[in-house]
Amino acid sequence: MESTKRGRFITLEGIEGAGKSTQVDQLARLLRERGLSLITTREPGGSPIAERLRALLLDPLNTGMSETAELLLMFAARAEHLERTICPALESGIWVICDRFTDATYAYQGGGRGVDPARIAILENLVQGSLRPDLTLLFDLPPVLGLERARRRRGQADRFEQEALRFFESVRAVYRERAHACPERYRLIDASASLPEVTDHVRELATVFIDLTLNGRYADSNA
Amino acid sequence: MESTKRGRFITLEGIEGAGKSTQVDQLARLLRERGLSLITTREPGGSPIAERLRALLLDPLNTGMSETAELLLMFAARAEHLERTICPALESGIWVICDRFTDATYAYQGGGRGVDPARIAILENLVQGSLRPDLTLLFDLPPVLGLERARRRRGQADRFEQEALRFFESVRAVYRERAHACPERYRLIDASASLPEVTDHVRELATVFIDLTLNGRYADSNA
Repeated sequence: MESTKRGRFITLEGIEGAGKSTQVDQLARLLRERGLSLITTREPGGSPIAERLRALLLDPLNTGMSETAELLLMFAARAEHLERTICPALESGIWVICDRFTDATYAYQGGGRGVDPARIAILENLVQGSLRPDLTLLFDLPPVLGLERARRRRGQADRFEQEALRFFESVRAVYRERAHACPERYRLIDASASLPEVTDHVRELATVFIDLTLNGRYADSNA
Repeated sequence: MESTKRGRFITLEGIEGAGKSTQVDQLARLLRERGLSLITTREPGGSPIAERLRALLLDPLNTGMSETAELLLMFAARAEHLERTICPALESGIWVICDRFTDATYAYQGGGRGVDPARIAILENLVQGSLRPDLTLLFDLPPVLGLERARRRRGQADRFEQEALRFFESVRAVYRERAHACPERYRLIDASASLPEVTDHVRELATVFIDLTLNGRYADSNA
C-alpha cells in the first residue's frame, strides 16, 4: 500500500528560545525506536546549493537586500532543498524531520516584516505544488520568555529587546493563526513548560501520529 | 507633464552573435546626442547583490541546480536590479538601456529549456508588477549565423554545435512569437545584415521612438 510506504514530512516551528532543536533530536530518537528510517534537516539550507544560498542570505554584505529578492532567494533554497533532499527521502519511504519550513516564511517575513502573505502563497504553490508537511509541531511561548532563554544562552543582553519583542509578538501571532486555521496538520505545544514536560508532550503527540500512520489511517495527502 | 519627465526603459534582446553589445553603445551615443541622460546595464546582474547572484548562477559548482531554483534566482537578481538600479533611474528621468531582460527568460528558460511560460509569467508579475520595457529591440538572425559569428570571435569550433543549433532555434522562435504578439513594444531588426546596415536601422527606429516620446505622444505605460 503506497500510502504507508511513503515517508512522512514533519516540521517543527516556533520563535527563538522555544526549544525546537532539542526536540528535533527527541523526535528522531522516538522514530528510530519505532523502527522508522529518517533524516533530520533544517531551513534555510539542507542541500549543498541551498546552504550556499543560506550563507548569502545571512551575509552582512547583503544587508538591505530588497524584500522581494530575499523572498525569492528563500524559496530558491527551498526548491533545492525539496528536490535534492526532502522529496527523494519521502519517495523512498524515509521520514523527514525539518527544523522550520514554509510556515516560518509566513511567520517571519509575513508577520514579522509585513510581506503580503498572498505573495508568499504564490511562491509556495509555485515551488511546492501541493506538497505540505504531514505534521507540524508548533512550539508556542510568550516572546519575552523566548528572548530571556536565548539571552541566557548567549550570555548577553539585547539592546533591541523592545523592538525584538514587538517583532516576535507578530511572528507568534501568525504561527498561532495558521495552527488554528488547520488543526488537522498543526499541534500546538506549550513551550513555556519545563523541558521534561515539553519532551513528554512531543512524544505523546508523535506517538499518536505514528500509530495512525502505521495503521494506514492517515490519508497520504501528498501521494 | 509627468509622462515626459519619467525616463524610458529600452531593452535589447537576441541570441548569441546578434550584435547586441555593439548596438547598446550605438544607442547610448544616439540618446546622448539628443540630450538625454541615460545608464546602460545588463542582465543577469546590474546591481551589487544581483552581480553576486549572477556569479552564483554562472558558477560551474552549481551545475545541476534545480530548474525552479534557477528561475527564482534569476528573478531575485531582477528584483534587486529593478529596485536598486532601473526604477530609481526611470523615476528621476534617466533613460535605461538594458542588455537582456525578462524576454530573455521566456526565450532561454522557456523556449530553450522547456520551462512552462505560465511559471515565468507568475514571477514576472510578482517581481515587476505592471512594469514592462517601453521599447524592445529584437536582433533577429538565424542561429547558424549567430553561432558562426560567436565561434569566429572565440576562435574555436563548438563540439555541441548541432545541439546548440536546436536550442537556439527554440530560443529564436519564442523571441519572434513575443515580438509578433505585441508589435507596439517590439521592433524586429534583421541582424544578419552588415554592421553599418544594422546600426542605421537601430538609429532610425530609436529616432522615431525618441521623437514620439519627447513630443509626448507616447503614453506613459508604467506611470
